[in-house]
Amino acid sequence: MAEISALAFKWAGEHLLLLDQRKLPDEEVWLKCETDEEVAKAISAMVTRGAPLIGITAAFGIVLAAKQAKRKGLSIQSELERASQVLINARPTAVNLSWAVKRMMNIAKQFQHLPEDKIVGRLEEEAIAIYREDCEANRRIGEYGAALLPENCKVLTHCNTGALAVSDLGTALGVIRTAYRQGKVKFVWVDETRPFLQGARLTAWELLKEGIPFKIIVDGAAAWLMQKGLVDAVIVGADRIARNGDVANKIGTYMLAIAAKRHNIPFYVAAPISTLDISLPSGDQIPIEERNENEVLSWHGVRIAPKDARAFNPAFDVTPAELVKAIITDKGVAFPPYEDKLVKLVHSD
Amino acid sequence: MAEISALAFKWAGEHLLLLDQRKLPDEEVWLKCETDEEVAKAISAMVTRGAPLIGITAAFGIVLAAKQAKRKGLSIQSELERASQVLINARPTAVNLSWAVKRMMNIAKQFQHLPEDKIVGRLEEEAIAIYREDCEANRRIGEYGAALLPENCKVLTHCNTGALAVSDLGTALGVIRTAYRQGKVKFVWVDETRPFLQGARLTAWELLKEGIPFKIIVDGAAAWLMQKGLVDAVIVGADRIARNGDVANKIGTYMLAIAAKRHNIPFYVAAPISTLDISLPSGDQIPIEERNENEVLSWHGVRIAPKDARAFNPAFDVTPAELVKAIITDKGVAFPPYEDKLVKLVHSD
Repeated sequence: MAEISALAFKWAGEHLLLLDQRKLPDEEVWLKCETDEEVAKAISAMVTRGAPLIGITAAFGIVLAAKQAKRKGLSIQSELERASQVLINARPTAVNLSWAVKRMMNIAKQFQHLPEDKIVGRLEEEAIAIYREDCEANRRIGEYGAALLPENCKVLTHCNTGALAVSDLGTALGVIRTAYRQGKVKFVWVDETRPFLQGARLTAWELLKEGIPFKIIVDGAAAWLMQKGLVDAVIVGADRIARNGDVANKIGTYMLAIAAKRHNIPFYVAAPISTLDISLPSGDQIPIEERNENEVLSWHGVRIAPKDARAFNPAFDVTPAELVKAIITDKGVAFPPYEDKLVKLVHSD
Repeated sequence: MAEISALAFKWAGEHLLLLDQRKLPDEEVWLKCETDEEVAKAISAMVTRGAPLIGITAAFGIVLAAKQAKRKGLSIQSELERASQVLINARPTAVNLSWAVKRMMNIAKQFQHLPEDKIVGRLEEEAIAIYREDCEANRRIGEYGAALLPENCKVLTHCNTGALAVSDLGTALGVIRTAYRQGKVKFVWVDETRPFLQGARLTAWELLKEGIPFKIIVDGAAAWLMQKGLVDAVIVGADRIARNGDVANKIGTYMLAIAAKRHNIPFYVAAPISTLDISLPSGDQIPIEERNENEVLSWHGVRIAPKDARAFNPAFDVTPAELVKAIITDKGVAFPPYEDKLVKLVHSD
């Protein structure tokens, strides 16, 4: 039985352990998931997060569902149908989630004639393959992206796109890590990324571990730093990229892209090929998750706003392709106009 | 002895009571200041805040310094020289602070031949006049600004520019209040305004009191709301406006102005004439306060970021005049190009 011990999750064959990212950087608490419902709940509550990582996590959720069906003597195929819906519905915006679940379901269908043991084994192999491919994708994204950055670069990033969001190096943070190791990136500005503070809590935690120099800023300060000449490039991840190159990513990304455009600062998006949704002609069709208002109104159980105040909490926004200098994938870099290139990348080997 | 009981401060002749805005909306705690040093400390620590309000507060700080000098048998003129430096140094960006202190010092100089009692009385009258004029300025700004807004308007604002930031109605929030009473403003989007959360804590508190419908958003969500057609106008206050119309205001304002420009949404600035600094040719010369990084790294004593993480915390940014649709003052509205108009407004009666 293959075991996986990644920064954000551990798999040892019978359950999935997820690092509870809501509790970072204060505590490192691991949550044990034994069923697909528990995995879906953990994704929905943002115990685990990051588009590629929720794809990997959901794949293991399917494995858990198959194992449970076998134990309980239920039909694997119908249990997987149920589990796939539960998992896909956990969060709507990141397409990696449904991408991974569909890939797992294809395996289940393809091998449905095999004995149950074999189906389960084949599903587990596939989940592990999704993880391993993402590790490799991270490495390639890192190399492709680092090549685009200038020497002595001060880079600004939003949200967390590191090992806590993917399998390994990271997407945007993988590019930053790789470019730092090459001596190209000198400094990182970390958007704190309200409301969930993935930048201040998670990206800062990863950068500290690696010794990469950085400072945290409030999200509203990014344009001012650009005006002061303190930012050479912006690089972010993505939760879904439409065929025309429109990019859904963490709320605040669009505003950052507008500011970068004004200052002629290159704005890069880094994501594995599983983030491309070429079935959608443009970003208009990407479903944007609206999360609970309490994520804005409270922090760590402490209410910020007056008792009767309400909030609106869209978790993502869509950055139009025209603001994106390049999309860095594990299969290569696409420059505008994106449509043909993205379709080609998806279909290439 | 004239008494003043405003929302954010009380003056009863011997001391200044300041509503501790750091503790809102949880508690309404009043801080007693008996010396200019205490007033300066309260301004510096943001017990009290808002460009016009720190001007008014500093004027009463000068009165307290004069009263103390008289009690202690010290020279009023030299004590006021000392106090004026202490107060002006409390915060660098809002010009209303030095404007009010200089106005008080002119009075001290003008009446230096009078007996001490009279000088003190004259200073107190002047501080009260500064307050009263600001109330009147608020009313005028409200009227001028409301006239610019369209019917059925959804307005977005940043920071707090209400009765907690000025004497009375507010500057940008005064415009919103006035337009709401006229039935023009239907809804307000409130930027939470990191790091100090003046929007989520203070503007929300004021809007709730008045029953004006609103929702809080994270600062990074503003551009997305604009793209979705949910914002008809943006209106903010100012801490200092240079002769060419460049506007220093709370960090995040510049990013908001860039986003508004992209969406062809009018971006208005509302401020009393005391916020204009026509001695500065452009915003480049406005000193931008850098505040303690812990305002970003912690909230309510709870650390957000990892222990060794650092932050950069500029409190203000400068929005270039070209992004500002109009500057609404108590002496009238200026449209671009601003230079001649702002100079004329300052010198008009």
